[in-house]
Amino acid sequence: MDITNIKVYMQAVGQNARTASRLMAKADTASKNQALIAMAEAIRHDEKNLLEANTRDLENAKAKGLGSAMIDRLALSSKSIASMADGLLQIAALSDPIGEMSDLNYRPSGIQVGRMRVPLGVIGIIYEARPNVTADAAGLCLKAGNAAILRGGSEAMHSNQAIAACVKEGLRAARLPETAVQVIETSDRAAVGELITMKKFVDIIVPRGGKGLIERISNEACIPVIKHLDGICHVYIDDQADLEKAIRIADNAKTQRYGTCNTMETLLVHEGIAKQVLPPLCKIYLDKGVELRGNKAACAIIPQMKLATEEDWGTEYLAPILNIGVVSGLDQAIEHITAYGSQHTDAIVTENYSHVRRFLREVDSSSVMVNTSTRFADGFEYGLGAEIGISTDKIHARGPVGLEGLTSQKFIVLGDGQIRQ
Amino acid sequence: MDITNIKVYMQAVGQNARTASRLMAKADTASKNQALIAMAEAIRHDEKNLLEANTRDLENAKAKGLGSAMIDRLALSSKSIASMADGLLQIAALSDPIGEMSDLNYRPSGIQVGRMRVPLGVIGIIYEARPNVTADAAGLCLKAGNAAILRGGSEAMHSNQAIAACVKEGLRAARLPETAVQVIETSDRAAVGELITMKKFVDIIVPRGGKGLIERISNEACIPVIKHLDGICHVYIDDQADLEKAIRIADNAKTQRYGTCNTMETLLVHEGIAKQVLPPLCKIYLDKGVELRGNKAACAIIPQMKLATEEDWGTEYLAPILNIGVVSGLDQAIEHITAYGSQHTDAIVTENYSHVRRFLREVDSSSVMVNTSTRFADGFEYGLGAEIGISTDKIHARGPVGLEGLTSQKFIVLGDGQIRQ
Repeated sequence: MDITNIKVYMQAVGQNARTASRLMAKADTASKNQALIAMAEAIRHDEKNLLEANTRDLENAKAKGLGSAMIDRLALSSKSIASMADGLLQIAALSDPIGEMSDLNYRPSGIQVGRMRVPLGVIGIIYEARPNVTADAAGLCLKAGNAAILRGGSEAMHSNQAIAACVKEGLRAARLPETAVQVIETSDRAAVGELITMKKFVDIIVPRGGKGLIERISNEACIPVIKHLDGICHVYIDDQADLEKAIRIADNAKTQRYGTCNTMETLLVHEGIAKQVLPPLCKIYLDKGVELRGNKAACAIIPQMKLATEEDWGTEYLAPILNIGVVSGLDQAIEHITAYGSQHTDAIVTENYSHVRRFLREVDSSSVMVNTSTRFADGFEYGLGAEIGISTDKIHARGPVGLEGLTSQKFIVLGDGQIRQ
Repeated sequence: MDITNIKVYMQAVGQNARTASRLMAKADTASKNQALIAMAEAIRHDEKNLLEANTRDLENAKAKGLGSAMIDRLALSSKSIASMADGLLQIAALSDPIGEMSDLNYRPSGIQVGRMRVPLGVIGIIYEARPNVTADAAGLCLKAGNAAILRGGSEAMHSNQAIAACVKEGLRAARLPETAVQVIETSDRAAVGELITMKKFVDIIVPRGGKGLIERISNEACIPVIKHLDGICHVYIDDQADLEKAIRIADNAKTQRYGTCNTMETLLVHEGIAKQVLPPLCKIYLDKGVELRGNKAACAIIPQMKLATEEDWGTEYLAPILNIGVVSGLDQAIEHITAYGSQHTDAIVTENYSHVRRFLREVDSSSVMVNTSTRFADGFEYGLGAEIGISTDKIHARGPVGLEGLTSQKFIVLGDGQIRQ
C-alpha cells in the first residue's frame, strides 16, 4: 500500500481489518488452527531470513546508540525463534472460545436465554521493539476470531515485517484473509495517532510496553484501551504465618526476577513476627545484593536498612531494591496496599482462615494471592495458555488477559413462537 | 455542599464517592438488602412528599412548554411510586453477586487459580427527566457494591431530591455511608462535563436517554461509557418458517409497543414465502395503523406500501412505521442486518436447524433470537432481575446490563507455599 499519506493509509488498513474481521468471526476452528500451525512452520522454516532481518535492525539500533536492555529485547536467536513458533502451536492447541454457548436457562415466558462468546472485532496492538510480540499477538487475536492491526517499535521494523510475512503465509495456507493480521509498514508516529482514534474500524487497543507509552496512548485514544500500568506488588507476612513458607515466598517474590511487573516491590511484616522473620530473610536479600529501605520499625531490626522515603513506597523499582514495612496487623497492611499499591498483584502469607477471607475480599487488586509468590501472576501460570498483557483496569478484562479477554458475549434467545404480553 | 463552584463541588462529590465505594465493597449482603428494603419503605411512606415535589417539577415543565412525552416520563403517580418501591424490593431479593468465587482450578505448579466477583467502584449515571431511574439506578449500584453519582434531567430536580432523601434514609438505616448514592444538586450542565472527566473518582459512566445525549457523552467522556445507541431491530422470516409463528412474532415485535428500543423497525421476508406471509401480516399492520415502506419486491405484493428510501432502512422510527424487505434468502438477510442494523436485537423465524445455527453465529448483535419476539430483549425478561440499560457495545458488557455488568472479576490464587521456578 501507499504509505505517503498516513491518514489515507491507516483508513485503508482499518477498512481492510473491519472486512477481514467479519470473515474471521465466521472462520471455523480447524481453519484457525491450520493457520496457526502453518505460521509456526513458516517461522521455523524462515529462521535464516528472520535472523538476517533482525541483524539489520540490531545494526541500526547499535548505530543509534540504543541501550543494552532494548537491544536485548530486540535480538532474535535460534532459540527465541523456536519459542515463537512453539507459542503459536500452543495457541493452536487451546480450545476455541468462539461460539461457546453457556447459561442457557428457561424463563417463565418459555423463552430460553443464554450467551454466546463472540470476537471483539478489530484489535489494535501497540508495542515496543520486541519482535516476538508480533507472532504472539497475531496468534491470540486470530484464535479469538479477531482481525489485528499491529504496530511494533520502529527499531524492530525489519524483524516485524519478516515475521508478518510468515503470518501471512499461514493465513493463506488456511484460506483465511491475509488482512486478518496487518503489520503497519511505516515508522511514522502519526500512524499510532490514527490507529487509536479510528473508532469506526478499531474496537479495542492493547498497548504493551512501559508506563510512558501506555499513559500517552490511553490519554489520546478515543477507543477503549486495555491498560497495564505499574506493578507495585506487595507481600504481607501475617503474625500467624508459617515462617518457612513466609521466607521462601518473600525471597522468590523479590529475587526470582527483578525486572518483571509481578515482582514484589514492598514487603509488609506484622510487628508480632518481624523480629523472627526479618533477620533470616534480610540476610538472604543482602547476600543477593538487594538494597533494603524500610520504615522506622523495620530499620530498628535490620541495621543495614536505610529509611524509605514517601516516594519509595509508591515506586515500581524493577530492580534489586525492596521496601520493608513493619505494620501493626492486617488492617494496616490492607490500608498500606490500598494507599500505595497499583492494584496489580498482592499476597498474604498466613495460616489464619479469617485473615485469608478478609484479605481476599478487601484487597482490590487484579490478582490477590494466599501463601504463594506474586511471580505466579501470569497468563501461562494461570492456565490461560498465553497472555496479551495484564490489565490493571476493572472494565472488560482484569489481570492476565488471554483469549477470553479478546472476546465478548452476546445474548442468544431460543423460542418456539413466544411473544411478549 | 456549596455548589457555586462546580469544579470544586464535583471534586468533593467524587472524593466522597471514592471513599464510600471502599466501604460499599466490604458491605455484607444483609446490610445492602436492609438498605434496599428501608429505601422502599421510605418511598412508600413519603408518597405525599414525592407527589408534591413532582407537582412542582410538572408545573415548571408545563410553564417551560415541555412536550407531552416528556411530561409523561416526568410524572409520578401512586402507582409509579409503588412500582419504584417494588423495584427496590426485587433488587433486594436478587442474590448478591459480590464475592462470588468461581472456576477455582488447580494448576500443575500446585497453585489453585480462580476468580472473585468485585464491584467496579464508582458509577456515574446520567439520565433524562425520569425520576424512577433515580431509585432503580441507586438500588442496582448499591447491590453490586458500588458508589453511585446520579445526574438526572434538570426538569426532575425536585422529584429526584425527594427520592434521594428516601435513598439516604435507607442507607442510614443499614449504617452504610450516605454518600454511597449522591444525587447532583445543581442543574448546571458543567457538572456533567466534570463527572465524565473525573478519571480519578469515577470508574464508568452509564448514560440513559436519547441518542443525542449518549453520543455527546461518549464523545466527551474520558472514562469508559456503557453505551446504548439505536435499536434498529430486524425480524427475518425464512422460507422454512412456521407461518403462524411468523405472523404472531412479526406482529408482536412491531405493535406491542412502538416506542421501545427493542421494537422491530425492519421486517425481512424470504422471497419464497413472501406472497403467503405478507398479505395476512400486512393486513394486521394496516388495521393497526402502521405505515409500511418496502423494497420493490415487497411493494409489488402489498399495494398500500410505499417505496422505502435508503435512509429509511437505517432509521429507528420508535413509531408505527415499518420497513419491509423481500430478500433472496438467509445470506441476503444477514448482509442487510450487518449493513443497516445497530447490533441491538435481531431475530430469525425458521424451522430449519442449519439456518438457526448460521443466524446465531453470524449475526453480530447484542441479542440474537430464534422464533421469538425482539420485544423480549430486556433485563427482566432475561432473568437479570433489573437492568441499568442495554449496551450496544462489545467491551465489558453487551445487551441488557444488570448487576453483573456493574461488577468486575479479580483473580484469586490459593497456595501452600508454592514459589515460581
